[in-house]
Amino acid sequence: MSTVAFIGLGNMGGPMAANLLKAGMTVRVFDLVPEAMQSLAEQGAFVSSTACGAAAGANVVITMLPAGKHVKNLYLGNGTDKGLLEVVAGDTLLIDCSTIDAQSAQLVAAEAAKSGIEFMDAPVSGGTAGAAAGTLTFICGGSDSAFERGQPVLKAMGVNIFHAGGPGAGQVAKICNNMLLSVLMVGTSEALQMGIDHGLDPKVLSDIMKVSSGGNWTLEKYNPCPGVMETVPSSKGYQGGFMVDLMVKDLGLSQEAALLSNSSTPMGALARSLYVNHARQGNGRRDFSSIFEQFAQLKK
Amino acid sequence: MSTVAFIGLGNMGGPMAANLLKAGMTVRVFDLVPEAMQSLAEQGAFVSSTACGAAAGANVVITMLPAGKHVKNLYLGNGTDKGLLEVVAGDTLLIDCSTIDAQSAQLVAAEAAKSGIEFMDAPVSGGTAGAAAGTLTFICGGSDSAFERGQPVLKAMGVNIFHAGGPGAGQVAKICNNMLLSVLMVGTSEALQMGIDHGLDPKVLSDIMKVSSGGNWTLEKYNPCPGVMETVPSSKGYQGGFMVDLMVKDLGLSQEAALLSNSSTPMGALARSLYVNHARQGNGRRDFSSIFEQFAQLKK
Amino acid sequence: MSTVAFIGLGNMGGPMAANLLKAGMTVRVFDLVPEAMQSLAEQGAFVSSTACGAAAGANVVITMLPAGKHVKNLYLGNGTDKGLLEVVAGDTLLIDCSTIDAQSAQLVAAEAAKSGIEFMDAPVSGGTAGAAAGTLTFICGGSDSAFERGQPVLKAMGVNIFHAGGPGAGQVAKICNNMLLSVLMVGTSEALQMGIDHGLDPKVLSDIMKVSSGGNWTLEKYNPCPGVMETVPSSKGYQGGFMVDLMVKDLGLSQEAALLSNSSTPMGALARSLYVNHARQGNGRRDFSSIFEQFAQLKK
Amino acid sequence: MSTVAFIGLGNMGGPMAANLLKAGMTVRVFDLVPEAMQSLAEQGAFVSSTACGAAAGANVVITMLPAGKHVKNLYLGNGTDKGLLEVVAGDTLLIDCSTIDAQSAQLVAAEAAKSGIEFMDAPVSGGTAGAAAGTLTFICGGSDSAFERGQPVLKAMGVNIFHAGGPGAGQVAKICNNMLLSVLMVGTSEALQMGIDHGLDPKVLSDIMKVSSGGNWTLEKYNPCPGVMETVPSSKGYQGGFMVDLMVKDLGLSQEAALLSNSSTPMGALARSLYVNHARQGNGRRDFSSIFEQFAQLKK
Repeated sequence: MSTVAFIGLGNMGGPMAANLLKAGMTVRVFDLVPEAMQSLAEQGAFVSSTACGAAAGANVVITMLPAGKHVKNLYLGNGTDKGLLEVVAGDTLLIDCSTIDAQSAQLVAAEAAKSGIEFMDAPVSGGTAGAAAGTLTFICGGSDSAFERGQPVLKAMGVNIFHAGGPGAGQVAKICNNMLLSVLMVGTSEALQMGIDHGLDPKVLSDIMKVSSGGNWTLEKYNPCPGVMETVPSSKGYQGGFMVDLMVKDLGLSQEAALLSNSSTPMGALARSLYVNHARQGNGRRDFSSIFEQFAQLKK
Repeated sequence: MSTVAFIGLGNMGGPMAANLLKAGMTVRVFDLVPEAMQSLAEQGAFVSSTACGAAAGANVVITMLPAGKHVKNLYLGNGTDKGLLEVVAGDTLLIDCSTIDAQSAQLVAAEAAKSGIEFMDAPVSGGTAGAAAGTLTFICGGSDSAFERGQPVLKAMGVNIFHAGGPGAGQVAKICNNMLLSVLMVGTSEALQMGIDHGLDPKVLSDIMKVSSGGNWTLEKYNPCPGVMETVPSSKGYQGGFMVDLMVKDLGLSQEAALLSNSSTPMGALARSLYVNHARQGNGRRDFSSIFEQFAQLKK
Repeated sequence: MSTVAFIGLGNMGGPMAANLLKAGMTVRVFDLVPEAMQSLAEQGAFVSSTACGAAAGANVVITMLPAGKHVKNLYLGNGTDKGLLEVVAGDTLLIDCSTIDAQSAQLVAAEAAKSGIEFMDAPVSGGTAGAAAGTLTFICGGSDSAFERGQPVLKAMGVNIFHAGGPGAGQVAKICNNMLLSVLMVGTSEALQMGIDHGLDPKVLSDIMKVSSGGNWTLEKYNPCPGVMETVPSSKGYQGGFMVDLMVKDLGLSQEAALLSNSSTPMGALARSLYVNHARQGNGRRDFSSIFEQFAQLKK
Repeated sequence: MSTVAFIGLGNMGGPMAANLLKAGMTVRVFDLVPEAMQSLAEQGAFVSSTACGAAAGANVVITMLPAGKHVKNLYLGNGTDKGLLEVVAGDTLLIDCSTIDAQSAQLVAAEAAKSGIEFMDAPVSGGTAGAAAGTLTFICGGSDSAFERGQPVLKAMGVNIFHAGGPGAGQVAKICNNMLLSVLMVGTSEALQMGIDHGLDPKVLSDIMKVSSGGNWTLEKYNPCPGVMETVPSSKGYQGGFMVDLMVKDLGLSQEAALLSNSSTPMGALARSLYVNHARQGNGRRDFSSIFEQFAQLKK
């Protein structure tokens, strides 16, 4: 039976760790915020007072952190604190589920490889709802062996588990996907609003485009026009869901990646600018489908 | 049994008329190019020497023409020639399958209504392959009655038959859809190329995004990256399929519509500019997924 | 001494006609709104009860109307009312100062030419302030002869008088210019805001860019950042100046022109979308430099 | 009399150092490529075999390097080699004329400040021609004192010397300016081409816009349309001038800066994508005004 160390117990990490417990695994947890560990302790997790303490001796270490610098500091140390790489055994599997830049992921993977330790980037999608339900998608970057070894723990937390390629590939695939998602959302919003401006019923137009060549995930699952789909954020005042600020973060990562590879992403770059403007107007904490309101006729 | 007049026998109209014949209907055809009528005559169509001759006495008239001005001239007359509205009986159903501006469609519908004649705009998607196979999609704008009456003939030529709304709504829905399609194609192309630039396998990345929140019609049916899907234009030198010039035409119609309704379509407008640039560089007759090449590293 | 008929006495036309009076010309005026003629009558203009009445017998006819359809109706008639072309003498010079689509201007010019009458499009820039001060810019489209004959009246109302080319060229040049202006305004706004976001003083940054390769008219005359230039709209709550709604109109004309010539204008099209969004959020009647606020951090 | 150390003698640095010699200064030079030092030695410079050797004891150190990492390595050391900060005296003025990211400049400035040494970022514009003629523009970021002390050497190499603000501000101002320049170039190109597409003479249209509200540096000094201005790159096959690859580099820096400050730059981001596409099609070494060709009708 695996012992899993889970470090980073926020809105996503908390419920993910809980699903490991439900699957019968031994779970040691750590978070900088003691309160975050409380509820997991009640569900049977062992609480550790340091990240290294949680990781030492674990078979698998899972991390879920805000940004690349946190991941690098945690695994590689920061001068003051030891890094996880110094304390884990050679046969430990390291899985970072944070959404960060691919460079940081590759750096940590390379450092781990020097000690013969396998590290895999495995960013998730599916949001807090998917984390709670154990239906997340994991997009993994790492060796075939690491991918194989990670299956049991990832399957305890998610449904779709993809292998995008070597180290960093999980991060690249995720931001390619999320960049494309932002383009789908903006493009769908403007198409629906243009239809509305010409007198069409957005539900009828959505139904037509959904099964035509305009079909895409946002029409299928996440229509941005209020009233078209009952249970999505657009029909609930754009509350819940995936925040504009998080989309801005992911689009920032995508543009950072585009700069590194000297890629041209006119649509993704435009989506980022529109989302930043939207956030700057006070919409940062609303669902990302609220970009629809940028196109609607709000005032005369 | 219906007598159908079919006017405009180009790459799309020809095979569409042939499917009416196959369905056992009596079909009268007219085209400005006599040769275009030849093959249909051999399949059993009655050839007419004028459009009005074909239309007079028919139960249903179907037209498939290049642009709004041709449709207006044909139905309303042009000073020299009589319009179809002058020669058809009051209970004739008029169906224009051309992709034109909604204003022209609404004008013809309004003129027809003055004589108590029902006119429906029913632009198609599905390309020449769909026209030949009888699997077209029709997006209809007109009254419920016209939509009902049109079913038998449309079903002989297509599979999906949508009712978008009143007169002109078919055209509006189609250009909303095709505008969105262009955005999907460009957005997918740049996302795939960015993945490639970072060393990802485009097939693996496509497979991941297809079932994730980046999922869209182009990933499903029409991947723009050579080699990912075997039978699509991108794997055949971007030959066949839907020409760049036709996408430019549809994007022109979408922008015309956006101007009329004072709508904002940043993604659609950007896609149009990119497609116009692409066409001006000599790619007008290649498949529209060749926009992928704008993002690829062609030369150093 | 010339007799000039001036038709269309709005915010621009009124003061323009007044300057003709100040230059000692005989001026006959007409406007659909009787009150608009009042003040000009007090300044010495002859009031006419119809447009044709004003135009008949005049040496020069000047028109200043909202859109192409008004210009076409006025000059060519509309079924009910006679057009100006029917009542003016063959040696009358017709000058339309409206900002309209080039096609309408070319159509009227061609109709006038059939009767041997010279028509020139001469859209203006300089705003209401320039109209009052007699410092407008005229961008003319028409024959050399028409351009020559128009000099005395245009010089009474403006300072810079350009000859862009044949009929319609004045309209084309004006919308090319105004499209470029919108790009300068948006581009300058985003560059200034990025500097501010990095802690730079927008005045210092403006001074540097103004004399560097980023130099442009908006930095010189119309800085969009509040507080940088004292007397411009940005320092007065974006009141006065050139309204967002008018920029949206001009950008609509520019995109209409781009569609006609199948031109690619990614920057102009993007500027239009941003301005339409801005107008739809309730900023239509503010100065067009208020687009700066789309980039500023308004709320957290 | 000053002793100046000049490190980095490429296309820009070489002629800049030569101007210091012409101004009668004692100049010590270093470059990784020995040949680059040859011609300066012939003009009177003292050649040093290491960067630290050149810098030790100099009153002013000037560096001209390709990217932020080179600047950081040179000043701060890289583990193997000592950094300049270890060898220069406390009253040495350090001036980095490279165009790099502001963060790297601020880091070096902060490290220098710890030893009480003044460091100023002073990126240039004006190209190789300006470097040779001694007419460069310097945009400086640093303290008032550093700016004051730098005047004599900068005036020996340039004409306009701006003080943008504290450390890093020179880099920020430069990339704001160059981002805006790219927008001016693309916007002017598309406006000119649209005029041409409507039959206007690009020279006439340029003359009109230059003195109207579309006026900007590219119309004044660097018209992108072949044949309008005789001596600029567009009239010489887009040879010489400022390479597309360098504009892509600067636009990369501008987007990096926009990500750091979470700024929205839709026009700058779009310009970057268009320039990257242009470079990827084999135009990287042509002048940046060749972006005009993206809009022209090249082939049918």
